[in-house]
Amino acid sequence: MDKEAIVIKMAVSNWQAYVQRTQKLFTELGDEKLLNAIAPGKNRGIYLLGHLTAYHDALVEILGLGTRNYPELYEVFLQNPDRADLPMPGLAQVKEVWYKVHERLDAGFATMQPADWFARHNAMTDEDFDKDPTRNKLNVLLNRTGHLANHYGQLLLLK
Amino acid sequence: MDKEAIVIKMAVSNWQAYVQRTQKLFTELGDEKLLNAIAPGKNRGIYLLGHLTAYHDALVEILGLGTRNYPELYEVFLQNPDRADLPMPGLAQVKEVWYKVHERLDAGFATMQPADWFARHNAMTDEDFDKDPTRNKLNVLLNRTGHLANHYGQLLLLK
Repeated sequence: MDKEAIVIKMAVSNWQAYVQRTQKLFTELGDEKLLNAIAPGKNRGIYLLGHLTAYHDALVEILGLGTRNYPELYEVFLQNPDRADLPMPGLAQVKEVWYKVHERLDAGFATMQPADWFARHNAMTDEDFDKDPTRNKLNVLLNRTGHLANHYGQLLLLK
Repeated sequence: MDKEAIVIKMAVSNWQAYVQRTQKLFTELGDEKLLNAIAPGKNRGIYLLGHLTAYHDALVEILGLGTRNYPELYEVFLQNPDRADLPMPGLAQVKEVWYKVHERLDAGFATMQPADWFARHNAMTDEDFDKDPTRNKLNVLLNRTGHLANHYGQLLLLK
């Protein structure tokens, strides 16, 4: 395996490990606990799951893997805080979309060649990328893995 | 910049971003809030800071950068949970050690060549590494960045 392939495998494995930990956690917790706040006055479990689901749905676009499928989740889970008095999908629906979004990402990752991961991500210009070649798709995945780990740590408090 | 150098820069930048976010957070929070629990019955801020500090002190060994400097932190912050009725260093001391540990790591990273990051980490055998070349030092850094992001998300709840 050459170094590019090794690095891509590492980054994808790290991402998938946090996706799987999160799934394991929300399965173990059960619905009642996911409707609780992670701490008094803070986000509820359902909000964090929806937030991650919507954010990861948008990841297909930044990685050039297609168009996001669930734009209706953005207002409630990305553009507004929890308890913003907006209609929110139920937990069963959020979980169903979670699985669909992550299956689609796994399928998309499998089609990507090493050079694709080192190409600029779709939220920046060629000019900026010439100045800073670290702003590639692989870096987006590292960034999203950090974001996921951050919220996974918070969801753990529902245990 | 070749791809190896790009990837190492990405991974180190991601790590440093979370280190800096954590420092900014504990500076902003002030000492009083850091003595609070992140949620009722959960770890206190001081425990999480000590936990990260001790874990990152040990990182020098797994990366082959030297010997850990603060083994006295391990029992209280790694081998035992918060409120285990063990004597705990004060917040001023934990913060001081935090800065020393991360300055030492930054200095160590600066001495590492690309090939060093792709070499096996010091907690595994050559034989296992031959079977799985992703178990290198760079992967340890990705892993520790995820662990840090996880606890950073928890510390944010003290705001």
